Amino acid sequence: MKVKVSDAIAGFFAKNGMTHLFGIIGAGNVHIFDSVYQNHDIEMVCVHHEQAACMAMQVYYRTCGKVTASVLTTGAGSSNGITGVLSAWADSIPCLVVSGNENSKYIHPGNHLRMYGVQGYDSSFMVQKITKYANRVMSPEMTLYELEKALWISLDQRPGPCWIDIPMNIQSSFIEEDDFLHFTPGQPDAEIQEKAAKSLNKAVAEIVDELTASKRPVIWLGHGIKLAGAESMITELMDKIPSAYLVSWAGIDMVDSDHPLLFGRAGVYGQRAANFILQNCDYLLSIGNRMAIPQVGYDITELTREAKITVVDIDTTELDKYPDRFNRTVHADAKDFLTALLGEVKAKPFAANHFSEWIKRCNQYKADFPWVDKEHADTKGFINSYKFMQRLNEDFKPDQVVVTDMGTALLSGHQVLKIKPGQKLMTSTGLGEMGYGIPAAIGASFARNKGEVLCLNCDGGMMMNLQELQTIAHYKLPVKIIIFNNDGYLMIKHTQKNIAHGRYAGVNKNSGVSCPDFSKLAYAFGFPAWQIRTWEDADKMLPELMACETAAICEVFMDPEQFFYPKLGLSVQKDGSLISPPLEDLSPFLDRETMAKNMLAGLHPKSQKIEP
Amino acid sequence: MKVKVSDAIAGFFAKNGMTHLFGIIGAGNVHIFDSVYQNHDIEMVCVHHEQAACMAMQVYYRTCGKVTASVLTTGAGSSNGITGVLSAWADSIPCLVVSGNENSKYIHPGNHLRMYGVQGYDSSFMVQKITKYANRVMSPEMTLYELEKALWISLDQRPGPCWIDIPMNIQSSFIEEDDFLHFTPGQPDAEIQEKAAKSLNKAVAEIVDELTASKRPVIWLGHGIKLAGAESMITELMDKIPSAYLVSWAGIDMVDSDHPLLFGRAGVYGQRAANFILQNCDYLLSIGNRMAIPQVGYDITELTREAKITVVDIDTTELDKYPDRFNRTVHADAKDFLTALLGEVKAKPFAANHFSEWIKRCNQYKADFPWVDKEHADTKGFINSYKFMQRLNEDFKPDQVVVTDMGTALLSGHQVLKIKPGQKLMTSTGLGEMGYGIPAAIGASFARNKGEVLCLNCDGGMMMNLQELQTIAHYKLPVKIIIFNNDGYLMIKHTQKNIAHGRYAGVNKNSGVSCPDFSKLAYAFGFPAWQIRTWEDADKMLPELMACETAAICEVFMDPEQFFYPKLGLSVQKDGSLISPPLEDLSPFLDRETMAKNMLAGLHPKSQKIEP
Repeated sequence: MKVKVSDAIAGFFAKNGMTHLFGIIGAGNVHIFDSVYQNHDIEMVCVHHEQAACMAMQVYYRTCGKVTASVLTTGAGSSNGITGVLSAWADSIPCLVVSGNENSKYIHPGNHLRMYGVQGYDSSFMVQKITKYANRVMSPEMTLYELEKALWISLDQRPGPCWIDIPMNIQSSFIEEDDFLHFTPGQPDAEIQEKAAKSLNKAVAEIVDELTASKRPVIWLGHGIKLAGAESMITELMDKIPSAYLVSWAGIDMVDSDHPLLFGRAGVYGQRAANFILQNCDYLLSIGNRMAIPQVGYDITELTREAKITVVDIDTTELDKYPDRFNRTVHADAKDFLTALLGEVKAKPFAANHFSEWIKRCNQYKADFPWVDKEHADTKGFINSYKFMQRLNEDFKPDQVVVTDMGTALLSGHQVLKIKPGQKLMTSTGLGEMGYGIPAAIGASFARNKGEVLCLNCDGGMMMNLQELQTIAHYKLPVKIIIFNNDGYLMIKHTQKNIAHGRYAGVNKNSGVSCPDFSKLAYAFGFPAWQIRTWEDADKMLPELMACETAAICEVFMDPEQFFYPKLGLSVQKDGSLISPPLEDLSPFLDRETMAKNMLAGLHPKSQKIEP
Repeated sequence: MKVKVSDAIAGFFAKNGMTHLFGIIGAGNVHIFDSVYQNHDIEMVCVHHEQAACMAMQVYYRTCGKVTASVLTTGAGSSNGITGVLSAWADSIPCLVVSGNENSKYIHPGNHLRMYGVQGYDSSFMVQKITKYANRVMSPEMTLYELEKALWISLDQRPGPCWIDIPMNIQSSFIEEDDFLHFTPGQPDAEIQEKAAKSLNKAVAEIVDELTASKRPVIWLGHGIKLAGAESMITELMDKIPSAYLVSWAGIDMVDSDHPLLFGRAGVYGQRAANFILQNCDYLLSIGNRMAIPQVGYDITELTREAKITVVDIDTTELDKYPDRFNRTVHADAKDFLTALLGEVKAKPFAANHFSEWIKRCNQYKADFPWVDKEHADTKGFINSYKFMQRLNEDFKPDQVVVTDMGTALLSGHQVLKIKPGQKLMTSTGLGEMGYGIPAAIGASFARNKGEVLCLNCDGGMMMNLQELQTIAHYKLPVKIIIFNNDGYLMIKHTQKNIAHGRYAGVNKNSGVSCPDFSKLAYAFGFPAWQIRTWEDADKMLPELMACETAAICEVFMDPEQFFYPKLGLSVQKDGSLISPPLEDLSPFLDRETMAKNMLAGLHPKSQKIEP
């Protein structure tokens, strides 16, 4: 029986459980849209800019674990999607972009015209360095093969985006169903697998020995655990190994923030207690955590200097990046590793109090350095964003799903919010692109059947995907957007204080950037709006916002110069020289006595020089 | 003297007359912003999405002829700009993108990590196929060399965008001023130049002979003439050679639309008279016109079948694309060609009445097939967009500058608007990306000292750069936006009528896409707004809109199913078969008798079969 290729593409989506797709129609994907609309197992979510499709698709996956696709058209319709693909690449999100293109007769190596046909260009070439696989279908028979291959690759090993370009004449052609070629992944070699398992078991046994012998271990849990589908093993891990634990930002919602062995989130914008614990440990086991610069700081030699470091990752490139500092690297899927590890510790159980001295000390750090502290006092009559976040946290619902944009929303959210089981916190941690918040909310809402999502945003980030407010309105998604209004780009203002003597350029109203009145904008899209300027406002309005059953916007006016604390910042000495301190020495600087008391091996030479 | 590299970059901008730059600040370009802000010869225009920067930069050039640059940051800040670069590539607009990136120590071929440093990626690789030159500065000394080279290349031969990536540590470094390397373009070889001039003169002499011998010549004037800076030579050309003339869409504003020898705009969405003239000519001389598919139709063998075709282009790839149909190709800059041509016809002048028979016939076509005709009648009580455009044209100011987005704004605008000397009409004709309108208006306004711009837009296109309404508000640009509201994506609706039996998918409110109330949106941004639904509204409101001295939005509600006529469309025969007619046979189809009367060599066999 002859089948239209676009119908087969829709069938591919449905067969692979892609109940929601994201995209915008155009001449280059009109056949696919038509076929998808006729397939009642799939809903096409029509956004207003393709970047939003590629971001929403990611957070859909993050929320419900189902891989899905964006369906883009040719020309600008596909180039518009690239930023969303780049962030999926950075954050290892499996997903598929299907782009249309001009008639395949125009697309060949001998065509050196600037455009293929009318609006076409070599989209799959453009994304080849930011996808795991990018290819073009040049004959109808290869359509399903390429889609199946791309989907398989996107999930294999370290996940990531794949991109398949399908010229419009291929989409509209008819071929015999039997003529479609299909992709069959190669079977892993049994011998190699056996060897790998053996080597993993050996490494795990040694790691358990090392852990057992250590006095101050930290296990750092990363997003790779979630990507490997091993999230549910974490509770057992924490039951069996009474170490101190940290989570990466992308991993926050894998563990109850109040778990007694979890001591928060370390990094450049880490929490003081978490950074002290990290920097004082004598054994660091990182699992599925790519040890990115925002986590480990700018100088790897300053990271947890007393510790032996073991890193478990699915990507050998990540394992090989600090050969002088990573004492042991284990190339494994986080789920395989955790399975082996749990097996090993069942055989050689830890006593519950094995690390009790260390846990006691960790609890002392926690008590001494609360997440919200005196550095988060309100300034100039404005509500401090960290204190606000803490207050907001109290109103969370048991199944609260939170997404954030960048800047204040990202930092205050990830430094302060406590996430309980059943709740979620998601953002773009790798690329960190402004504009992620609104599409993220759309993707998360569809992933929970048009459910409620809390979107933490900022004035700057709102503007980068403003048009998607209409997508929220159109689909009647109960997305509540809290906008931290800080008059522009607050993180860059602080950079300019550091590197340009406070000369502001392109960061606020006075230097070239302003934002509209978001309440008026809310009304234009038919949403209710609140404006919070005081704690009284917050007490009155937050419950109203949280009770609201529709989309809504709530603006929080904050100090346009508010600092993001704690952070790993430069120290300017009295003589004007700069010191870039080690990861434990966060700003605002503690007095040296406190620092010394909290660093078991003594102050780092650079910290000794700092004059707080 | 030691100079900060970012100061040298700002100096480069200023030295090259770039008084306005476009961009958004980020960690990756903060040094450049700082230096630019300290250079009082330059204004940085801060937009709200980088795609808008790259589009505004283009239309700035189109408006005032000054090449300028976009200053983007690393990560998403640069990937966001790609669509604007792609459209500059398609439309041959010289311009420069300067992107920031992470510290250069992360950027080397051995780094296979997914991201460079925190947020970096290989931006200059990504755009290499859609720029004339894309490179990265890897040492401070090379900064000016690369910028100078890129600027030179962007203007050399066929213009286009160039992209220079500058890691942040390079921007912030200091070097001796004398240590900067500079780019010196190679001197053209005198012998080669002489040969080329000789060969050009020979070709021109032959072309003049061919023209002289022809009975029904058409000279097709393209945007390449403007790009070559030869716009001012057109009047003399038309004085000296009394041929019939056509203009490409991008060339409309080069010639007074009412010039007695100018017979409009031919193409797939051509005017009937223009297409008849093109298709009946016996000699076609195309100058700086890339003979793109929207101009020449889908089958080159059906183009002006009685004519000898001579094509003059700066790009040999364009010249070589139809070797069987282009009888003569001349590889030359349009200015050089016109100079030689004018020289030749001064020596061998044409009598003013040399082609008078043909011009008489052309005038008959013009009289018989007016631009706005009975196919543009109002439907379902809505104002027809073509008639509206004609009405709007009456209110144009002597220096009216018009930019359009895509869809209705593009088609009705370019098919109907008459442009007088001193007026301008600009859009993205190559890539045709939705969203071009608002940034185009911003670029054009800055190019005329924050002057007035009329932006013709549609509901769909508005959404793709909605955030830039705030840029208009912030800089108080008197941009008047007319939005043709046709409930979604009207061109695609017509495609779906053709290829999907009218099954709508993702094109209007009922199929997944809606737009906000643009009047409410206007108020949110502080703009006055009008809504035109009837001719009475138009008569009352258009003068108010045109008199308004601030930014303003005026929505025109049109038939959501209105056809775009005339157009080269398929003919569905009574037996259900489809005929794709030749370029002269536009829809709605004329009766065959009229068609036959107007085609001197008789009806094309396909046209004979069509049953209107």
